[in-house]
Amino acid sequence: MKAYRIFNWGQGGKLVNDVAVPEPGAGQVRLKVAANGICQSDLHLMKEWKASPSHLKIELPMTIGHEPAGVVDKLGPGVEGIEIGTPMIVTIAGCGHCYYCAIGRNQYCLHKGKQVGMGLDGGNAEYMVAPADALVGAGEMDLAKAAPLSDAGLSSYHAIKRVEHLLVPGSRVAVIGIGGLGHMALQILKATTSAHIIAYARSQHSLDFALELGADEARSSTDAASFEPMSVDVVLDFVGSAVTIAQAAGMIKPLGHIVVVGRGSGTFDFKHNAMPYGTTISTTFGGSKFELMELIELAQKDVVKAHITKFSLDEVDEAYRLLEEGKIQGRGVIIP
Amino acid sequence: MKAYRIFNWGQGGKLVNDVAVPEPGAGQVRLKVAANGICQSDLHLMKEWKASPSHLKIELPMTIGHEPAGVVDKLGPGVEGIEIGTPMIVTIAGCGHCYYCAIGRNQYCLHKGKQVGMGLDGGNAEYMVAPADALVGAGEMDLAKAAPLSDAGLSSYHAIKRVEHLLVPGSRVAVIGIGGLGHMALQILKATTSAHIIAYARSQHSLDFALELGADEARSSTDAASFEPMSVDVVLDFVGSAVTIAQAAGMIKPLGHIVVVGRGSGTFDFKHNAMPYGTTISTTFGGSKFELMELIELAQKDVVKAHITKFSLDEVDEAYRLLEEGKIQGRGVIIP
Amino acid sequence: MKAYRIFNWGQGGKLVNDVAVPEPGAGQVRLKVAANGICQSDLHLMKEWKASPSHLKIELPMTIGHEPAGVVDKLGPGVEGIEIGTPMIVTIAGCGHCYYCAIGRNQYCLHKGKQVGMGLDGGNAEYMVAPADALVGAGEMDLAKAAPLSDAGLSSYHAIKRVEHLLVPGSRVAVIGIGGLGHMALQILKATTSAHIIAYARSQHSLDFALELGADEARSSTDAASFEPMSVDVVLDFVGSAVTIAQAAGMIKPLGHIVVVGRGSGTFDFKHNAMPYGTTISTTFGGSKFELMELIELAQKDVVKAHITKFSLDEVDEAYRLLEEGKIQGRGVIIP
Amino acid sequence: MKAYRIFNWGQGGKLVNDVAVPEPGAGQVRLKVAANGICQSDLHLMKEWKASPSHLKIELPMTIGHEPAGVVDKLGPGVEGIEIGTPMIVTIAGCGHCYYCAIGRNQYCLHKGKQVGMGLDGGNAEYMVAPADALVGAGEMDLAKAAPLSDAGLSSYHAIKRVEHLLVPGSRVAVIGIGGLGHMALQILKATTSAHIIAYARSQHSLDFALELGADEARSSTDAASFEPMSVDVVLDFVGSAVTIAQAAGMIKPLGHIVVVGRGSGTFDFKHNAMPYGTTISTTFGGSKFELMELIELAQKDVVKAHITKFSLDEVDEAYRLLEEGKIQGRGVIIP
Repeated sequence: MKAYRIFNWGQGGKLVNDVAVPEPGAGQVRLKVAANGICQSDLHLMKEWKASPSHLKIELPMTIGHEPAGVVDKLGPGVEGIEIGTPMIVTIAGCGHCYYCAIGRNQYCLHKGKQVGMGLDGGNAEYMVAPADALVGAGEMDLAKAAPLSDAGLSSYHAIKRVEHLLVPGSRVAVIGIGGLGHMALQILKATTSAHIIAYARSQHSLDFALELGADEARSSTDAASFEPMSVDVVLDFVGSAVTIAQAAGMIKPLGHIVVVGRGSGTFDFKHNAMPYGTTISTTFGGSKFELMELIELAQKDVVKAHITKFSLDEVDEAYRLLEEGKIQGRGVIIP
Repeated sequence: MKAYRIFNWGQGGKLVNDVAVPEPGAGQVRLKVAANGICQSDLHLMKEWKASPSHLKIELPMTIGHEPAGVVDKLGPGVEGIEIGTPMIVTIAGCGHCYYCAIGRNQYCLHKGKQVGMGLDGGNAEYMVAPADALVGAGEMDLAKAAPLSDAGLSSYHAIKRVEHLLVPGSRVAVIGIGGLGHMALQILKATTSAHIIAYARSQHSLDFALELGADEARSSTDAASFEPMSVDVVLDFVGSAVTIAQAAGMIKPLGHIVVVGRGSGTFDFKHNAMPYGTTISTTFGGSKFELMELIELAQKDVVKAHITKFSLDEVDEAYRLLEEGKIQGRGVIIP
Repeated sequence: MKAYRIFNWGQGGKLVNDVAVPEPGAGQVRLKVAANGICQSDLHLMKEWKASPSHLKIELPMTIGHEPAGVVDKLGPGVEGIEIGTPMIVTIAGCGHCYYCAIGRNQYCLHKGKQVGMGLDGGNAEYMVAPADALVGAGEMDLAKAAPLSDAGLSSYHAIKRVEHLLVPGSRVAVIGIGGLGHMALQILKATTSAHIIAYARSQHSLDFALELGADEARSSTDAASFEPMSVDVVLDFVGSAVTIAQAAGMIKPLGHIVVVGRGSGTFDFKHNAMPYGTTISTTFGGSKFELMELIELAQKDVVKAHITKFSLDEVDEAYRLLEEGKIQGRGVIIP
Repeated sequence: MKAYRIFNWGQGGKLVNDVAVPEPGAGQVRLKVAANGICQSDLHLMKEWKASPSHLKIELPMTIGHEPAGVVDKLGPGVEGIEIGTPMIVTIAGCGHCYYCAIGRNQYCLHKGKQVGMGLDGGNAEYMVAPADALVGAGEMDLAKAAPLSDAGLSSYHAIKRVEHLLVPGSRVAVIGIGGLGHMALQILKATTSAHIIAYARSQHSLDFALELGADEARSSTDAASFEPMSVDVVLDFVGSAVTIAQAAGMIKPLGHIVVVGRGSGTFDFKHNAMPYGTTISTTFGGSKFELMELIELAQKDVVKAHITKFSLDEVDEAYRLLEEGKIQGRGVIIP
């Protein structure tokens, strides 16, 4: 079968067509891949990393793609409660034995080694194998739009769930960065809260897009006057640069919470007087399996939609090039 | 090997010695059983039930015993992250795919069919097989004292966790019934809260025992004056008779919570004026895997201890007879 | 000034026009009443009660009306932070010293004695006096529509807040009874959650109304097939009869929660097997001051609206007669 | 009467004996002061500040002392529910009208101007006046030990309540700095959780003291090996220097929470890779009235005790000098 693989660190990926269709082992499931979303992390993996990060234990060659959706094709030994033909989204499986896994926080599991596209062969292929625990039913959704839920959508959803106790009627939430994650966040906030939503972005195009997606206000992030002191209860920062975290700190209210989702490498000088009393700032990573289930429910009600651009498996190189150049509208999705 | 099994509904159990040592299938683990706690539910199963309850799907013959602890003896295919020789406690495994399982509430899973001693062969045997997901590490505890944690201990622990938001300093909690579950509840409350703990029991012996275990007060449940109106924030009723639930309602405060754990078949006439404003009453079932992990931590610190009476596998019939007659001190535990 | 007052227990109310305009004492505020919603409780107070309930300590004569809104007219000594001319809604003030008050649960305060229309002179008058603590700013709302928020709206809002942790995407909530409270509940659920909302009512008119207000489904409560076992996570019962609570128990899921808001005097035989494992049932009373603030925010965004029928102060007798006969559309509101 | 007052910014305090005994206004209460704890903030106020911070609106002369306890001596007009002779602790009153006040978070109120010793005349005097809302009953405690609960105790208690969801059995909490606040925190943790408590301090004396107060371990904060990566779920940093916050970040686990209570002016370079995934860091301020009520309950059970050194009103200058030199054991308390 065809698959897009990494053979050597730092040398990018390559489409090959002689990969054997994988057999599911005990506790595993084979999917016929329907779609796989592509992500900045893939670029880091293909080009920047010179070896496997120690917590991921990647061995090459490996098929990339960690945002896949597909249809159950074959069950490995011991798999129960899953039926052939079911459409599924693939998420991160934890070890299943630790406290993080037991409380449903699988993405924070310290022993995970089962992430497709980041250790296990991933979704830029015709078929793939995943642990049964990593699968969540996609219902009747278009799988091309379902795939981005597992990362772009879920990371946004998890960030919002971490602060949902603050998103009461009358609260105000700032969303900085209206890209792959931010455009999902606006829709999720609109669908699940009655908070006043203020979108911050640089381009007029993004500001207009934000209003379409449900923001109550859209403000230019290049205008200092857009940021009023002690004006919001929550900031979701999908950029994560030094500039945006400082903007967040400049507008948060006492007892407010800033969630830095974007990995823009920004540093913030945290200290007592840098923010009002009782303010919280946190990072976040991915989302939990139960949160993906909740997000899929929103997607099935059509109140949260990934905006996508499709590519075939033969166009993967081109797709990653466009992604790198920032030229893909919404999320790029490979359709094998 | 030896095992204590049910062959026909309504005819009790029987010790046999020609059962094959079971082989673990994919995703399963074989344990050498170290101990199994015995329970009133076993008596219902052996004597009262005339067929399998529809949600349990029990097929006979079956080895009974749903409170086992043992040492990992052999791994089935696909099991990772568990080592031979590890001491383990067995709890209820959910299906692993539903929302209840995803949020860590495995015991409320609607599709469970993996409960040992209630469908799968249980712990009154020399060896047993359990799903890997059902195992929780027992650390360095005496396994005879560890076994009762999985049911008697965990049911108490879960009930307390459901109301922990009410157990602030200055709050008052009533514990009705100081038996197998209640004696664990007193210790858990003492170790994890600073609430004022009032034990209610019928016998002086139980009242004295309650004070030893950490109750701040012990009151006779046969004296109406023991129950003051609007005096407690939480009631944990481990009896569950019509009398005890009415006593609970008679002393709960506004916004208080009554958890009926005991299956004493009591009925309570719930209505607006039967309790103060905003009162809550609920039933409960077992506990979650993450709660068992937390409980084991308490047991390892030696702040929660099961009181047990040991029997050999050859004495199982005798043990169940004494249980039925109410003559076992603490929890009865079979040591194969 | 004109006021509608009770002079003797059991003899109804009477409009008089020689009541002195009240002076605000220390810590009190005088309002020029703009509107007062009328309520079934007023009928009990006027006709059924033969003496003051002991917790209310009502002395006659007293002006009735506990759902008022008005404009600040004069401040008593010691009142700070409130300005003349501000539109306000009046809610229940607690004692200010107890734990219930300190956690913001003023309506459950055991020492309250400051409820207008239920001890203090109420809102069916041209002017009234209220404790400063009982006032919440109404913003720029039409005060005729603001008045019903303080009771009909707030009781619905509080009931929903008690179960908001269960109202995640994918959850299902049943609303039984689409009257004064239920019609508010549907709008609140729609505005603040993404739960699937199922309205239950007897008349086709109410079912149609429910769909207009945002219910996802409307089902006849006279058809037994409307109630599927284990189908909903939450039931909000605004009727509270024996029939409706039994219907609620018949459709609740494990770990679900039934909130009985309606005071229909129904009794439910609560016991272990009457509902699935881990189910909770509770009563509720009014709402907290902070919840009224949140609800007013929703009303100002126009996503929650009270449906009202207006009467002048001269028409109060007529208004209560129509209320008693069930002939008022939405909430009846007196405009002095 | 005698009082210790500030007359000019930057010139310290002065004991005078000709201050009129204050009269309580509407909504106020006069206390005969029994004790007042002294605090580093008093030193800032007396010596460093050159004008009132804008949010405090201090006008001179003013009596200092913001940690008082006393006995109710006289009620101002409109005060209900408080009796002459009742022992009381004084905390921060909010405005009573805003959302922060309504949810019971009075110390974060943006409109507060009612803090004794920081705007209103404080507790270093024979008598003082406080808003009725600022008082909490002290029960039967020694008032010299009660006074420090309102600041040193409450700030510790509030910090712990912010992370109590993480302090489950099996969790690990680090306490950095075993001084006025830290020594209370250890006792509160011991009394209300079963977490494993690790105290960090510089001196052997403090380490020994920590073990006495209930720490499970005491580790030298000058030894780098004391801080293991990803080893604790919570850090309570009562120092707040650049060094201690970096130590905290170096040992926190994924999803853990660092609360920086100490105002040691430290700055931390917050960014994605500076801590494990999903970590939270926050500042905090004081505590809420309901939390003071809970803390007083702990003190009345004798499980939390302030360690104090007493001074008379005539010794105030001496007491502040010793405080500045770091020579007071536990909390210094003025007894008028």
